[in-house]
Amino acid sequence: MTTTQRGVDVALAYLRDHADEHLRGLDDFLRIPSISADPERDADCRRAAQWVAEQLTAAGAEHAALHETIGHPIVTADWLHAGPDKPTVLVYAHYDVQPTDPLEEWVRPPFEPRYENDIVYARGSGDDKSQLYMHIKAAGAWIRGAGGCPVNLRFFFEGDEELDSRPTDQFIAEHPELLRADFCVVSDSDMQDDNGTPAITYGLRGINYWDVKVSGPMQDLHSGQFGGGVDNPANVLVNLLASLVDADGRVTVPGFYDRVRDLTDADRAAYAAQPFDPGDWARRIGVSGPKEGERGYTLLERMSGRPTFDINGLYGGFSGDGSKTIIPAWAAAKISCRLVPDQDHHQIAAAMEEHLRRIAPPTVKVTVTTIQGGNPLITPLDHPALKRAAAALVKAFGKAPLYHRTGGSIPVAAAMDQVLGLKSVMVGFASPNGNFHSPNEWMPLANYRGGMDALVYLWDEFGSLTPGELRRA
Amino acid sequence: MTTTQRGVDVALAYLRDHADEHLRGLDDFLRIPSISADPERDADCRRAAQWVAEQLTAAGAEHAALHETIGHPIVTADWLHAGPDKPTVLVYAHYDVQPTDPLEEWVRPPFEPRYENDIVYARGSGDDKSQLYMHIKAAGAWIRGAGGCPVNLRFFFEGDEELDSRPTDQFIAEHPELLRADFCVVSDSDMQDDNGTPAITYGLRGINYWDVKVSGPMQDLHSGQFGGGVDNPANVLVNLLASLVDADGRVTVPGFYDRVRDLTDADRAAYAAQPFDPGDWARRIGVSGPKEGERGYTLLERMSGRPTFDINGLYGGFSGDGSKTIIPAWAAAKISCRLVPDQDHHQIAAAMEEHLRRIAPPTVKVTVTTIQGGNPLITPLDHPALKRAAAALVKAFGKAPLYHRTGGSIPVAAAMDQVLGLKSVMVGFASPNGNFHSPNEWMPLANYRGGMDALVYLWDEFGSLTPGELRRA
Repeated sequence: MTTTQRGVDVALAYLRDHADEHLRGLDDFLRIPSISADPERDADCRRAAQWVAEQLTAAGAEHAALHETIGHPIVTADWLHAGPDKPTVLVYAHYDVQPTDPLEEWVRPPFEPRYENDIVYARGSGDDKSQLYMHIKAAGAWIRGAGGCPVNLRFFFEGDEELDSRPTDQFIAEHPELLRADFCVVSDSDMQDDNGTPAITYGLRGINYWDVKVSGPMQDLHSGQFGGGVDNPANVLVNLLASLVDADGRVTVPGFYDRVRDLTDADRAAYAAQPFDPGDWARRIGVSGPKEGERGYTLLERMSGRPTFDINGLYGGFSGDGSKTIIPAWAAAKISCRLVPDQDHHQIAAAMEEHLRRIAPPTVKVTVTTIQGGNPLITPLDHPALKRAAAALVKAFGKAPLYHRTGGSIPVAAAMDQVLGLKSVMVGFASPNGNFHSPNEWMPLANYRGGMDALVYLWDEFGSLTPGELRRA
Repeated sequence: MTTTQRGVDVALAYLRDHADEHLRGLDDFLRIPSISADPERDADCRRAAQWVAEQLTAAGAEHAALHETIGHPIVTADWLHAGPDKPTVLVYAHYDVQPTDPLEEWVRPPFEPRYENDIVYARGSGDDKSQLYMHIKAAGAWIRGAGGCPVNLRFFFEGDEELDSRPTDQFIAEHPELLRADFCVVSDSDMQDDNGTPAITYGLRGINYWDVKVSGPMQDLHSGQFGGGVDNPANVLVNLLASLVDADGRVTVPGFYDRVRDLTDADRAAYAAQPFDPGDWARRIGVSGPKEGERGYTLLERMSGRPTFDINGLYGGFSGDGSKTIIPAWAAAKISCRLVPDQDHHQIAAAMEEHLRRIAPPTVKVTVTTIQGGNPLITPLDHPALKRAAAALVKAFGKAPLYHRTGGSIPVAAAMDQVLGLKSVMVGFASPNGNFHSPNEWMPLANYRGGMDALVYLWDEFGSLTPGELRRA
């Protein structure tokens, strides 16, 4: 332990000594507008990938490479010199970010980071560029600072997390050799609170995302001349969408709940143990209170342990100033469901498509396009990696982590579980209130600093496990 | 009768002699992009108004003037030299047009008229610039060609018909002296068919048009983090809108039907007498058939004799390429109802606003803005003006007109009825299939020529009535 202990100290000192330089690097990274959903930002996404590869090499990782996909490039690298008796850990994060509209609500432009009160504000500051960057710097602290890392490392950084799971799904299927490991650490989640309480996420929701378009007459019609006679695609669309949730808050698509694993007593106890003030939660997001929601579940349970149906956008017809008295030729919506174990996104996608087409009146055409899908995930609470991760977090933050499930989706984690048989621990450092996917995204810099320390400790903790212990299902 | 008969012939000959010049004038008028709903076209609307005033003066009308309103200018003029024993007729039409999007669906730009197979294609060719122009030329044929008109004429041309009834409502209330007449002729409707069968419209639907906005959280939220816990404004909006029509196709707003005059046997007989092929109607607009619709009414009855609820546009949240996993901060819709006698648009506007606010969950804010309102209208079928109008149409087109009700709205006609006590006959010349409010609006030039002849005959017919006969309620 003495050698390793000294290694930890050296690695941590390396982070202290290079703190200013590292923060400048983060700033550079956050300035690259790597919005994966915007085709006009393709070159920026590639620039971000190249920047990441260069940083990996600078940190001492080897074989840094960009891999072409049907989407944006995937970046891999490795450092495999800890020895064959040491575990190999796959590190996952993503360099792409969400779109930034409505742009006018940002205090500063999203790709011009702002630093105030030890907080960094920028698109990607929480989700997920900072966390990716922290992994590179923590690995560099071991490799460059301490002369080597207690575990073998593989890096797997993608650029389509906010858009499309197919590029990584395909990459995982086609390049298992680049991802061969005993365990996976995913950093794309948040801490328990903004007071330095860390969190380990043991469950993730899956997702399905669709575009639904209802088409009727071949062009917009005069609503006076045809109103009452023609099925209005916008009326039909709202009827279809409204019918997808019943009075009890349950999704009405046949088969939707067939594979839903209900919450166990242990799950419910973990939820109940979470410090949570619904009034404060509501004030923070500017609502008078939670929705009525699905019966039989608490608010926290509904937000991560139960599936959802949400409309993400509505469009079609006239939306300008004033009025235009038309029956629009078509109307459309972006809709999505969050999924919970053991729902399968392929099955849910097919069920939704079939259901919407079946319930639509014969006078319109309904086009349902599945845009995104990813499965939900649960990692066993008794896995040894979770205990080690907790120890690392205690050392870095001085507080024990809470174990929880999160409402978001990391389809790639589910794919690694299903395709590669890799279990994951999700250790993340964003703020739970950090405006991911919204204007003025932010992360406390204390999380950034503490997170890098935690990752340094984590490799030390994992280094005391055998590959077999980490492989345990 | 001899003198007048000679007058008719002279006036008709004047139209023949000036046909080319008149068509060039129509072309000039159609080229002015007078879109009242587009604030960037305000100057063009004013230019159209000035052009109309100059044309009125050129036709021999007097006192042509533009009147400022809260919207676009109103143009009035008069010719009051037929004598005090002759009736005074108010002529109404509008120079503004509908917006033109989707622009890419126009074969030629909407304000570059296209002439093919004796048809003119342009925004405003049917609704309503051609009809306004025909009135000016018919009056000019009498005044300039025949030396005087058999009736006294007042002209009332507005520029907000497609946008907002408030400017004309206000003008009617404030300037009754400029509109003093015994009867009103409104030309903003269509013929019975495209084979030269004229139509007299004796009923119009009214309208209410609203913008409905549902606001929830203060900004877009991550749908994974908050999905299941927060009332999604887009979900709430579709639930609200879907609930506004019941399974029988009836609007659910309390009080909505309280003042609806049900169809009489005579009304139903008039509907049944209309030549109408539902299959052809459906093919023309590109649908497989009519909507199921309100029970107990035929398709034609539902399209003009019954009130409606239509969504004219949906907007809010994400609508770009790909996906954005948000709960949008707000979602909105443009919605409208067509009204039938004796519904009152003020009452319906208030009922809708109250109803939507009442049924919304307390976790969201619902903002209902009434954008437009106009009352429905019925003119007695036994009014002497209708018989005279029919005679004029027979002379011009060689066919007897059909009397019918139309599904569209002319709020100003209702206001003249209610405020000035003026009954109207609606004689229009657009094609019933003329793509008003849609791309590639068109009108047969046979309607244009025949319509001017009909208006020449109409003043001759009305000239044989006393003011009191025309004033009959």
